[in-house]
Amino acid sequence: MQRYFITSSNWADGHVKITGDDVHHIVRVMRMEKGDHILCAHPEGKVAVCALMELTNDHVTAQVQEWKEEQVELPVDVTIAQGLPKGDKLELILQKGTELGAASFIPFQASRSVVKWDEKKAAKKLDRFKKIVKEASEQAHRSRIPVVDTVVSFQKLLEKSNDYDVKLFAYEEEARSSHFEKLSNAMHSLKDTQSVIVCIGPEGGFSEAEVSQLKEAGFRSVRLGPRILRTETAPLYFLSSISYHFEELR
Amino acid sequence: MQRYFITSSNWADGHVKITGDDVHHIVRVMRMEKGDHILCAHPEGKVAVCALMELTNDHVTAQVQEWKEEQVELPVDVTIAQGLPKGDKLELILQKGTELGAASFIPFQASRSVVKWDEKKAAKKLDRFKKIVKEASEQAHRSRIPVVDTVVSFQKLLEKSNDYDVKLFAYEEEARSSHFEKLSNAMHSLKDTQSVIVCIGPEGGFSEAEVSQLKEAGFRSVRLGPRILRTETAPLYFLSSISYHFEELR
Repeated sequence: MQRYFITSSNWADGHVKITGDDVHHIVRVMRMEKGDHILCAHPEGKVAVCALMELTNDHVTAQVQEWKEEQVELPVDVTIAQGLPKGDKLELILQKGTELGAASFIPFQASRSVVKWDEKKAAKKLDRFKKIVKEASEQAHRSRIPVVDTVVSFQKLLEKSNDYDVKLFAYEEEARSSHFEKLSNAMHSLKDTQSVIVCIGPEGGFSEAEVSQLKEAGFRSVRLGPRILRTETAPLYFLSSISYHFEELR
Repeated sequence: MQRYFITSSNWADGHVKITGDDVHHIVRVMRMEKGDHILCAHPEGKVAVCALMELTNDHVTAQVQEWKEEQVELPVDVTIAQGLPKGDKLELILQKGTELGAASFIPFQASRSVVKWDEKKAAKKLDRFKKIVKEASEQAHRSRIPVVDTVVSFQKLLEKSNDYDVKLFAYEEEARSSHFEKLSNAMHSLKDTQSVIVCIGPEGGFSEAEVSQLKEAGFRSVRLGPRILRTETAPLYFLSSISYHFEELR
């Protein structure tokens, strides 16, 4: 059944109003008709089976038939803080990271980021990023769409990190070292409903100054296996492992 | 230190002979000189620090200084059997799968694969695939290069699967079901030095006939978390989880 994310103001009295691009998708692409069923996801994370009532070129209304019981969201809230990588790697991270259950993404300007984004470029990109995570959420059958922040400075990232229960950073020197803290230690310190932020450097990794500042701000370094991962592979390893730990292991 | 994979016939008496593209890389790209150090990986998985002796346009010779003690390979042998996906997704799987520690890849023609490869196309692709896994192995600091098989039929894949200790397949119906075998059960049944093959369907998933045949051939279905993953994301989840289980959890 096709899944649509509906903004909270469009829910009322057991009815849902669908507007914007989704109307075109329902009417023209899927060619659905009155009485057909769709899944509507509420921003709070609940999902309802709904029957289509009225279809126009401008809006579609549907009636809630049944609320679904499903647990497709990770029991912990994971934020990927990603040092701006080259090319379209950030798009890959957003798409795959959404499939793998991330709650939010914060791109940041790292000292070794090759690209620099001005405000205009960042604003334009942000629209595209939001589209990517919305589509990936629908495809993955998620009940929430992850939040994508605008690009922030490293200092701003450190300030934002105070909102999290557990703070980690992926440090490739850990993969090379024989003395490292196992990722499972960090996982065991995380409890259900808590939030974790994991900070990942760009292609060239973190500068020494950034590593010092991360440690001062309470970030613990973790190893993501003994091999050296590319910047865009590291968040996927982290999210897969946290899903395995919290959803498949216990 | 730069890492090169050297075929076994080019090792003799504590010396290494480097030929082919790597010569260009050492002499022209890295502009290295006599006395500089490189890492040379033997196909059996050992790695040596070597000093450059003689550099010509045709070959480079180096002397073994020290064998390195390193454990960067997964303790279990993982083969990704991938239903042919669309576009260049297989290249993404090979690159990321190599970073994440796969031992080999077997692409297969699934009944729902949209693309069909003739022998000529497959041969041309195979050269490119081998280059991708070689470069990814160097970048990830692996001591082995994964094997990439030529494309096989589904029947041939079932025959090949008899060589493995544990046989699994990723079945998206498991993600949707409330009765499923946890991935960790499969992991617990796998012992060090054993081999596992995981079979992943193309974009449209497995056909019912394929699911029956997989089960008859002794494949167990596993869930890769409760979200629906794209075909190219599934092998990355599996490899990350197996690394977490065998390298970070214990």
